[in-house]
Amino acid sequence: MLRALFRLETLAAVLTLSITAVPVPAQTAAPAAAAEAGTPGFVKEFGKMWTFDAPPLDYWKARYGFSPDQAWLDHVRLAAVRLPICSSSFVSSEGLVMTNHHCGRACISAVSPPDTNYQRTGFVARTLSDEKKCPGLYLDQLVAIGDVTPKIRSKITAATASQQVAQREAAIKAVEDECQQQSGNVCQVVTFYQGGRYSLYQYKRFSDLRLVMAPEEEISFYGGDPDNFTFPRYDLDLTLLRVYENDAPMKTEHFLKWSAGGAKEGDPVFVIGNPGSTGRLLTVAQMESLRDVTYPGQLAQLKRNITIYHEIISKSEDARRQWENQLFYAENSYKAINGYQAGLLDSVIMVKKRAFERSFRARVNADPKLRVRYGDAWEKIAAALAEQRSFATKSRYYGFGGSQLLSWAGILVRIPGEAGLPDSARLPAYRGEGLENARRVVLSDAPVDKELEKLTLAAQLTAAKKELPAADPFLAAILQGRSPEVAAEALIEGTGLADPAARKALLDGGAAAVRSSTDPLIVVARKIAPLSRAVAIRNAKLESTVSANAERIGQALFAAYGTSLPPDATFTLRISDGVVKGYPMNGTRAPYKTSFFGLYARSAEFDNEPPFRLPERWQAARERLDLSTPFDFASTNDIIGGNSGSPVINQAGEVVGLIFDGNIEQLPNRFIYTDEVARSVAVHSKGITEALRRVYDAGRIADELEGTAKVTSQ
Amino acid sequence: MLRALFRLETLAAVLTLSITAVPVPAQTAAPAAAAEAGTPGFVKEFGKMWTFDAPPLDYWKARYGFSPDQAWLDHVRLAAVRLPICSSSFVSSEGLVMTNHHCGRACISAVSPPDTNYQRTGFVARTLSDEKKCPGLYLDQLVAIGDVTPKIRSKITAATASQQVAQREAAIKAVEDECQQQSGNVCQVVTFYQGGRYSLYQYKRFSDLRLVMAPEEEISFYGGDPDNFTFPRYDLDLTLLRVYENDAPMKTEHFLKWSAGGAKEGDPVFVIGNPGSTGRLLTVAQMESLRDVTYPGQLAQLKRNITIYHEIISKSEDARRQWENQLFYAENSYKAINGYQAGLLDSVIMVKKRAFERSFRARVNADPKLRVRYGDAWEKIAAALAEQRSFATKSRYYGFGGSQLLSWAGILVRIPGEAGLPDSARLPAYRGEGLENARRVVLSDAPVDKELEKLTLAAQLTAAKKELPAADPFLAAILQGRSPEVAAEALIEGTGLADPAARKALLDGGAAAVRSSTDPLIVVARKIAPLSRAVAIRNAKLESTVSANAERIGQALFAAYGTSLPPDATFTLRISDGVVKGYPMNGTRAPYKTSFFGLYARSAEFDNEPPFRLPERWQAARERLDLSTPFDFASTNDIIGGNSGSPVINQAGEVVGLIFDGNIEQLPNRFIYTDEVARSVAVHSKGITEALRRVYDAGRIADELEGTAKVTSQ
Repeated sequence: MLRALFRLETLAAVLTLSITAVPVPAQTAAPAAAAEAGTPGFVKEFGKMWTFDAPPLDYWKARYGFSPDQAWLDHVRLAAVRLPICSSSFVSSEGLVMTNHHCGRACISAVSPPDTNYQRTGFVARTLSDEKKCPGLYLDQLVAIGDVTPKIRSKITAATASQQVAQREAAIKAVEDECQQQSGNVCQVVTFYQGGRYSLYQYKRFSDLRLVMAPEEEISFYGGDPDNFTFPRYDLDLTLLRVYENDAPMKTEHFLKWSAGGAKEGDPVFVIGNPGSTGRLLTVAQMESLRDVTYPGQLAQLKRNITIYHEIISKSEDARRQWENQLFYAENSYKAINGYQAGLLDSVIMVKKRAFERSFRARVNADPKLRVRYGDAWEKIAAALAEQRSFATKSRYYGFGGSQLLSWAGILVRIPGEAGLPDSARLPAYRGEGLENARRVVLSDAPVDKELEKLTLAAQLTAAKKELPAADPFLAAILQGRSPEVAAEALIEGTGLADPAARKALLDGGAAAVRSSTDPLIVVARKIAPLSRAVAIRNAKLESTVSANAERIGQALFAAYGTSLPPDATFTLRISDGVVKGYPMNGTRAPYKTSFFGLYARSAEFDNEPPFRLPERWQAARERLDLSTPFDFASTNDIIGGNSGSPVINQAGEVVGLIFDGNIEQLPNRFIYTDEVARSVAVHSKGITEALRRVYDAGRIADELEGTAKVTSQ
Repeated sequence: MLRALFRLETLAAVLTLSITAVPVPAQTAAPAAAAEAGTPGFVKEFGKMWTFDAPPLDYWKARYGFSPDQAWLDHVRLAAVRLPICSSSFVSSEGLVMTNHHCGRACISAVSPPDTNYQRTGFVARTLSDEKKCPGLYLDQLVAIGDVTPKIRSKITAATASQQVAQREAAIKAVEDECQQQSGNVCQVVTFYQGGRYSLYQYKRFSDLRLVMAPEEEISFYGGDPDNFTFPRYDLDLTLLRVYENDAPMKTEHFLKWSAGGAKEGDPVFVIGNPGSTGRLLTVAQMESLRDVTYPGQLAQLKRNITIYHEIISKSEDARRQWENQLFYAENSYKAINGYQAGLLDSVIMVKKRAFERSFRARVNADPKLRVRYGDAWEKIAAALAEQRSFATKSRYYGFGGSQLLSWAGILVRIPGEAGLPDSARLPAYRGEGLENARRVVLSDAPVDKELEKLTLAAQLTAAKKELPAADPFLAAILQGRSPEVAAEALIEGTGLADPAARKALLDGGAAAVRSSTDPLIVVARKIAPLSRAVAIRNAKLESTVSANAERIGQALFAAYGTSLPPDATFTLRISDGVVKGYPMNGTRAPYKTSFFGLYARSAEFDNEPPFRLPERWQAARERLDLSTPFDFASTNDIIGGNSGSPVINQAGEVVGLIFDGNIEQLPNRFIYTDEVARSVAVHSKGITEALRRVYDAGRIADELEGTAKVTSQ
């Protein structure tokens, strides 16, 4: 599944250098750069996550014979709406919104009555009045896009990197504030090409969303972690919501009609949604750093956590309820990162990446003016990452990880010191609003599971002990000669920080209270803090270097290719073309679609054991279903986490499916788009209506989707 | 599917050196040699194709808690009978024999009436009298095994390799003849461990086999070439035959009863059948030669042929009937060899192979006596293969390949010369009975398709032209400056050799007729013959060196490990243990079994297009079937081509399945046994009876299998 995994590349703090982009001649591209921008050859490297202000009309015409007009583009843009971490779309004139079940989890839990869990039982509103308001949920409709690159750049005049950061942030905030005041919209400046281009995105926000229908989790996430990120697949990963305005269903012309036929093999289809993050414009050095440093660390930590969650959950039904979402997200992240890592370990992918970089650098270096502007950016990034790598093990462990309580102790110890420094001298997390956030975080009244804390802290310390040298000062400070298990037991049992009042007293007491505290976690945190701070400051400086030079490269790329090069994903609206298509798999062929037959097959073939068990309602409905109905399907659209809930539409703008995942072969597409075996995975539109009518007895909703009934007539 | 692919290693002519095996101490095995012989660790390298005279009773007891007595072993050995290129078993007291559909093809075609093709329509004998005699088909029951190693070795006293060959062949023939005369059985001396051990196998032969039931090819080979060698799978790859004696069903106690429950996940199961050929005892140099020389050449040639067959078949229904079996075998071979090649290209496999070889050679070299006997065998093989590699391109093309007519021309040109030489100086193919065979082959009255001949010859010459140097004398002789297409057209159109009478005249006319012939293919063959002969003689000598030294290594291995090391496959009866088990696949898990639901799913998901189309009878039967019935299943038994038709039995000796294939991940098991993802694939016993009863209305046969009815009562 495609839950957004933001910023794995830790390129968060992008710095700006006041360099005006100088065009790099595109026509001298070497063959390794895969032909002309905007052609299928070019697409093969950089993918198809097109922004709505730069649709590749010529390429679509050549590839599909498809020439949408501006009205078509505006219509589908307005119909495709963004949820806080997912995508969705209007699918009726009465404000019905289609997204994934896994995007609706919070709402589904929140509206469940005390004695019922709609995650387990599913939910169908029989009438409008049964539809249940989702607390806090909102969605954003993209109403305008404008280029504000000159406006931002003109404000950046300072000489030092940190001053430039401040100027850039101020300029962005000014543009956003002005926009918000003038339009009443939610306004956001989006950074494309790592700073190559700034665009102003304006959203109309809708804040009254109600739950209309959600299937059982067992069928929405059928196959569980094993089937996650794979195809063939049998998931009804669907939630239907409705936007209300003034306590009545919202009326809109900009909704997607339902296709009568649904997706068929070979059909050109378009996915409209908000891909969260890709790393296709990263340098080879950045990818190698992810491969050798970042991902191995993340995978090891996730694996530790997954083991512990499984252990805890196996102990009681209570523990299961409390921790199964954490386990779900940990397993999802593990599988995703493992797939990204597979891409970086794939020599074919890396050869292509190296070839493009070599050729693009050669073009830059061939022109003395370009060489001065951009020529050394790659080496500077490589040097910074090499230095980071030299103390990566310290970076991984010097800190307050492995325990919620230790992390609070760390914040409490740090706040007095950081608060006393000028903003720019603080640790990055304590700059600007960070200090206030830290104060809020440390006063959390979330309950603490001490048994879990002991397990996770012991696991973290065991890993640290294995990787750090025996005489390491961090180990000395926290272990004090004890084994990881004994140390974790003593620290977690001995601390009083589980009580929010204890934390409040330390926060209020300031430096003196922290200094005199004998709480064992505070004592340890005082020793760790200076070690950790030195490493964090050094890392922040190196990351600034990486970001600043990544922006220079982004400017060079944008100057060379312009919008014919789709920018890396930014969790903003994109339209991606593709084709409904099977692929070679496991020595044979994967079909382009699955069927209800296949769902019952998978249940029978695993003896109906979880995660392949069918909900009761589905077992009972079997005889009523046309089992040859398509269930899920695969296509070559270019998507990634954040695209969950995106509609798949045909050239008539009609819904043929609902994106909810990619196959395992698609994960390496994070770094390079390929379509030999990589596929997007969607629920088939016919599967949705068949299930609504014959499993959920929800003809009211199916009729509304198919446009054969008006909501208000019911 | 598991059609036997014999001797891909071209180790056919095994030479014998009169060296008495000297034991190599097994207990000094390095860790790389994977622990003790007979333990699961050892099994991981050399597999589980146990001979019936050396069942691993201690290992079975430890692994499964299973201790079969001699009566159990004798019973299942006698129940498992061998077909000419397949395996099979007695499954009723009335001589009913179960094997695969693809093992019964020849009989199914032969007994089809003129207006019907049972391959297409399927066949069910409603009564005993409907059962149809298969012309020429027989099966062999293994009734005795004896060790004749000393008997053979004592006869080999000569000094030269070629004399030793003659002595060895004579000794084997003497043992076989004596046995045959004394027992009336079919007797065969089997060479194990490349000459490390000789065993005398005695068979009782049954020659009256009748067709009882065969399903449609569409369901027996459901999924066609794409699904071939894969799992999950949905094939009813079944043929039922019956042995008759004196025109009545044979009576036997040694048949396998039908299991009531069938295979279930985790069950220990045993496969009894005749694996054709493996290469697990090959040296690393031999495997590298297969990887770099043999397999690439075979794959390229198969690919050329497959392309041409497809082209020809697309032209008419007649051509389809004529060539589809050739296409079927070519595609099957291509997929199999491609899978073997994948194993050799797998660095993990090769690392293990190198580690074992290094450790075993170190053990041999550590003992001065052993070093003298065996120490240089590996280097001698490597040197011979390196020399072969130096002229491998010539070996590949210097000859009469690419055309049936050209191959006849080559034989006609060669016979007079070879016939005039002493036997040992001839080309290997013309030694002993070879000369007479050659005369028979060249008088074949098989029809020739000249259009196909032109295509295959042009393809062969195109490949030759690409790989051989421009000035190559073979190219000059056959192309004479023409393009491959023009040369092929001229040669095939110009020759009169399609007429058997023309070939007979040349054969009868002897050297003078051949010398004066102006037939363009004879003219070309006269030029090619000396070029080709030099290469063939050089290759034969090098192959003798490889074989002789492979035998020395086989003796060393057998001396070290004895029968605890299962010998490479020899198309003789083996018993292989395993477990019914799913496996990690495609990012998720493959179930241990498939279901009838899954069959209908695969049909629906490919829109019922071939090769996923269901036969009419199956489409009509859907409502009558229990779709959750198991269809096929996967297990960790150790099998390879030749095992087709083997029964899968439980510890009670009851049939739980019918082997018909391995998955794509199992193909590299040719060189090293693994069971992480490699699986054998069988039809589930319950799938067989469900189909017989509800699709084929063959309750008579299902009852007989389940032992609930006697044949004679019907």
